[in-house]
Amino acid sequence: MIRKLIEEPHSIWTEGEGQYSEIVLSSRVRLARNLAQFPFPLMQTEASANAVLERLDKVFANSKELKLYRMSEIPELERQALVEKHLISPEHVQKPENKGIIVNREGSISIMVNEEDHLRIQCFASGLELETLLAQADKIDDEIEKEVNYAYDEQYGYLTCCPTNLGTGMRVSVMMHLPGLVLTNQAGVIFSQLSKLGIAVRGLFGEGTDAHGNLFQISNQITLGQDEKEIIENISSVAKKLVSQEQAARNYLLNNAGPQVEDKARRAYGILTNAKLISSQEALGLISDLRLGKALGVINELDLKTINELYLLCQPGYLQVLAKGHLDPQARDIKRAEIIKEKLAKF
Amino acid sequence: MIRKLIEEPHSIWTEGEGQYSEIVLSSRVRLARNLAQFPFPLMQTEASANAVLERLDKVFANSKELKLYRMSEIPELERQALVEKHLISPEHVQKPENKGIIVNREGSISIMVNEEDHLRIQCFASGLELETLLAQADKIDDEIEKEVNYAYDEQYGYLTCCPTNLGTGMRVSVMMHLPGLVLTNQAGVIFSQLSKLGIAVRGLFGEGTDAHGNLFQISNQITLGQDEKEIIENISSVAKKLVSQEQAARNYLLNNAGPQVEDKARRAYGILTNAKLISSQEALGLISDLRLGKALGVINELDLKTINELYLLCQPGYLQVLAKGHLDPQARDIKRAEIIKEKLAKF
Repeated sequence: MIRKLIEEPHSIWTEGEGQYSEIVLSSRVRLARNLAQFPFPLMQTEASANAVLERLDKVFANSKELKLYRMSEIPELERQALVEKHLISPEHVQKPENKGIIVNREGSISIMVNEEDHLRIQCFASGLELETLLAQADKIDDEIEKEVNYAYDEQYGYLTCCPTNLGTGMRVSVMMHLPGLVLTNQAGVIFSQLSKLGIAVRGLFGEGTDAHGNLFQISNQITLGQDEKEIIENISSVAKKLVSQEQAARNYLLNNAGPQVEDKARRAYGILTNAKLISSQEALGLISDLRLGKALGVINELDLKTINELYLLCQPGYLQVLAKGHLDPQARDIKRAEIIKEKLAKF
Repeated sequence: MIRKLIEEPHSIWTEGEGQYSEIVLSSRVRLARNLAQFPFPLMQTEASANAVLERLDKVFANSKELKLYRMSEIPELERQALVEKHLISPEHVQKPENKGIIVNREGSISIMVNEEDHLRIQCFASGLELETLLAQADKIDDEIEKEVNYAYDEQYGYLTCCPTNLGTGMRVSVMMHLPGLVLTNQAGVIFSQLSKLGIAVRGLFGEGTDAHGNLFQISNQITLGQDEKEIIENISSVAKKLVSQEQAARNYLLNNAGPQVEDKARRAYGILTNAKLISSQEALGLISDLRLGKALGVINELDLKTINELYLLCQPGYLQVLAKGHLDPQARDIKRAEIIKEKLAKF
């Protein structure tokens, strides 16, 4: 099942569906949980880490939907592809020993085992869909809790390895495409205001990564002192505000620099359908131009889903999964150019 | 006749024929002559300039091949297009009053009247063809001389306005495409060596213009002290030497940076067939990439003639002739992108 999930050329965040899908690629709700009777991952021995994996394997043994895999059974390139599909964090693949992933067939649920906490329950949806995701994550959380005792404190709530996750243990994030705010030079100011409001803005692969392709992840920094619903409402309203600011910026661009915006999108199409070599960073920028052109109606040949899938296709790990082996950087740039061309040749 | 010559989408230098046509676009032999009984152009009054035009009109009145036009009867944009077709010099259009052009239907002969000298007899051919051109220019020169007396001095030879043209009055030039020498950083050194040998290297439109699109004009600076044949042999051997250096540079690129060269050519094709806006400078650079790709066999869809014609099509004057009127810079960039796309759509 996981091999199929790794190999298929799409992910929840590439579907191009759900609310505000022209701007919001996907939503995620993540709950951090720890089992009371085991040492926290920071203090784990190999034996205690394994015990956690075995305990959870038992919990999901009879599940028809969710299945546990040990990270060590997944080849390196495929682990990298799981990061690129946003199913696990980059940290989760760096030391795969005694780590696990529990996923469903669709990749809409992914639980990391022995990452920073014993459990990181993640639910994903295309577009802005936080309320639905919260209900879904709560349900999984309740089902797990029937079988295990969570580390929980009456005063602090759910106990986590890092104090920034204490309380609800919940982090909510929304992945947005904001080329309008970047092109009109508003992104910097808006993001620094958000930061003062306890909202983190990160790049495509979370903490410490660049916002290539004008993709940004918006998430709550505070997990304590607000209940789940408040956090959801807060992030949801911030996301909606960003959607309207981005929409205004796009309209401004269309009205004041229509030919330039069309030119940018058309050139991106021309380069992506012709280049012989292309780096991941350049490709992400061009896909962003294409996506903006599609949203503004100056590129009509492509659908949103295809454009979103290009973001995934050009990632180094996924690329090497397709190539069925390691590629040196130039070979990657050639392969990337080939598969992008192949994908776009259908139009 | 001249309107047809102006409007047709090609010129002698775009034909892509003749010797070394992958590197040499065209050759030109130009003879500077003055009529003995009239003041030289520098000293001309309107009346004496007109008298020269009338005298020459009479000389060519019965010619089936050559016909005289006054520059003032040619609209401004069309005069500009004549410059871009390399039939007249940029100086010849700046003050069109009392100036003329005598041309044949094919645009392979163009005589400027009242430019710096009374007559600038020019013969053009595609590829490297200097000997043929010299014979052709000599023949025209002899025929004119049957009807008029040239200003000639036994010691100095043909008298010209500028002493740098004294003697033979002959300037020979070869237009070459030298992207290999530019990309391998050899162009600067080679051109400065040529300069020491009395060879001038100039851009697309002669003296003081930039070498956009990696097009260079190689010509003799010395007209005195060498006879016509020596000048021709000298320029011809310099051109052949440059051809072999350029060929070596191209082979080096193909062997050492094959994918990069192909990438460059393919991207140029992608941008030229998709851009909504394109400046003349950018277009010339991309056409150069395409032309190199064609020569190296990494672009096979296009023929050399089509690529050469793109160099002409993207010129501002010719563009506005096609648009049948003045265009502001943005409208020119849009029109340029349109006609390039249209031209390439045939492939």
